[in-house]
Amino acid sequence: MTARWVLGVDSGGSGMRVALVDAAAPPDADAPPALVSTNPVRTGSDGIDAAHLLEQLLPMARSLLSTVGGESLAAVAIGAAGMATIGGHLRAELPAALRGALKVRRLALASDAVTAYAGALGQRPGVVVAAGTGLVALGTDLTNWRRADGWGHLLGDSGGGAWIGRTGLEAALRAYDGRRGGSTALLVAAESLFGAVEGLPAAIYPRADRPAVLASFAPHVARCAAEGDEVSAGILALAARHIADAAGTAYPAGATGRESDGYEVALTGGLLKLGDPLCVPLRAELSGQLPRVRQVSATGDPLAGSVLLASALSTDSLRLPQHSTLFQVSVLEEN
Amino acid sequence: MTARWVLGVDSGGSGMRVALVDAAAPPDADAPPALVSTNPVRTGSDGIDAAHLLEQLLPMARSLLSTVGGESLAAVAIGAAGMATIGGHLRAELPAALRGALKVRRLALASDAVTAYAGALGQRPGVVVAAGTGLVALGTDLTNWRRADGWGHLLGDSGGGAWIGRTGLEAALRAYDGRRGGSTALLVAAESLFGAVEGLPAAIYPRADRPAVLASFAPHVARCAAEGDEVSAGILALAARHIADAAGTAYPAGATGRESDGYEVALTGGLLKLGDPLCVPLRAELSGQLPRVRQVSATGDPLAGSVLLASALSTDSLRLPQHSTLFQVSVLEEN
Repeated sequence: MTARWVLGVDSGGSGMRVALVDAAAPPDADAPPALVSTNPVRTGSDGIDAAHLLEQLLPMARSLLSTVGGESLAAVAIGAAGMATIGGHLRAELPAALRGALKVRRLALASDAVTAYAGALGQRPGVVVAAGTGLVALGTDLTNWRRADGWGHLLGDSGGGAWIGRTGLEAALRAYDGRRGGSTALLVAAESLFGAVEGLPAAIYPRADRPAVLASFAPHVARCAAEGDEVSAGILALAARHIADAAGTAYPAGATGRESDGYEVALTGGLLKLGDPLCVPLRAELSGQLPRVRQVSATGDPLAGSVLLASALSTDSLRLPQHSTLFQVSVLEEN
Repeated sequence: MTARWVLGVDSGGSGMRVALVDAAAPPDADAPPALVSTNPVRTGSDGIDAAHLLEQLLPMARSLLSTVGGESLAAVAIGAAGMATIGGHLRAELPAALRGALKVRRLALASDAVTAYAGALGQRPGVVVAAGTGLVALGTDLTNWRRADGWGHLLGDSGGGAWIGRTGLEAALRAYDGRRGGSTALLVAAESLFGAVEGLPAAIYPRADRPAVLASFAPHVARCAAEGDEVSAGILALAARHIADAAGTAYPAGATGRESDGYEVALTGGLLKLGDPLCVPLRAELSGQLPRVRQVSATGDPLAGSVLLASALSTDSLRLPQHSTLFQVSVLEEN
């Protein structure tokens, strides 16, 4: 059987990862080799810069194809942070550009929440919470998508890394001032990470990556909670509740009865590294809000999700529903 | 009696205001005429730019002096946002520069919280909460200062305008998603102010004045609370509690018994414009936390506070305590 080369792409705040697999070969249990760029695609005032994305993607794709002697791509799936809200230029420019440059026959442009979903649950119905610095929940019954939160660190992302870190730093500064609700354990942790807290505003406000700086404090909140600090445990309990709220809201409409017995919920992303101080209350909250839904571990990451979507696209086995901004599929040339 | 010209300066995020008065004349009940610059003093990576401040201040001061035929200044008081944390260059450069350029004999360099205090309570002991976009509480027994909060919109300023606005927008988006704790009244208000909420992240995150944009939603939270929205009322009740926490923490140490019967607490700044939905729960919280302290209205604004401090400095009647960063007084030349 002829090789059917497909490309998966994951583009986000820390750069771009690209992987090539043969969709005609038996699935490989290991993650495929990936090329990585640590240069995040630029976002301008009118959205994600399509030319800057292509500038990085095309050489990586050509390099991967040349390694295997491939000449065209049966399918490409690109998952990008911001695709749904500021991906207009990608949707307008990538189909023709990729067909021209790489002979791509089918193209999927997906929100990174969709590739996170596909990485975590494949094409099965359920809910995936993608939680790292930010937090978004996405659910599907394979007919429609439902999204909850994902509004960013000033408007939501409740329970995500930046939220936990920010709430922990607030509690540290309450302790410093002597206001109610403070935690001296978090104050000590904040001083160990950032130095004297008088300098904290100057260390955080001028930075462009404020959400990531806030999120860098989240592991300290988890450690303080594990060591018995009640304020920290309270912050993680509230985070767990917010995360379960988002999961419950994104859960497919009408799928609350027996027909949802096979549905699954998975958490994916760096927030899981906080371990038991978050995961124990989160499991309890999820059991309370979604009692009939199985809690499972994510199978793979968003890059694995992109590869899976590209493979499904090339073999006519796509089951996840298309959507005008979350997940747009274009057939550029018949196979 | 010879006129004793003194200058008060208020420098902050919206620009600089400068007023000249004769400290030897009877106090005027009306606010003195002020010159205004709408060009905020620049802040560089190493703090507030002293040269840029002087560039604006000197022409305004000379213009005011020439109007009255004055030739030197008995005292100048400058209140500036950021003086305590990033005012190092101002403390290093302004004394010599102002002595040289304007024959200034005494100089006070104050945090804007200190000039807000002096504007609100004059030189009487107590606590002042300066609340607009941000929030800081400052108290004194005329021996020491105590500060609470004032950490900015990501780390604190709990109960201030940006905090109320952000919390209100979070509740609006909860309603949009269908998560718990949402308010449809706030969702309608957010859409009337910012348009379709799908565009809210793009309308807020790229802006440099994010705290002010968040604070612009606070009056809508107050209006929704006045119209019976329980989520909005809950946000303002929590804001009131945070504000009273800060006031209680900044309250002079040890002054909780009978000796504090004459002490006062005042709120100053734009947040008062939210009216009863905030002020009614705030009065109740303050009565609970500081039962022996009289709640009074602020007498004047931070510019009036600067003028009062400059006058006191020129007449040897300064009672507010000096402090290395909050309130530094220099005698440049004997009167």
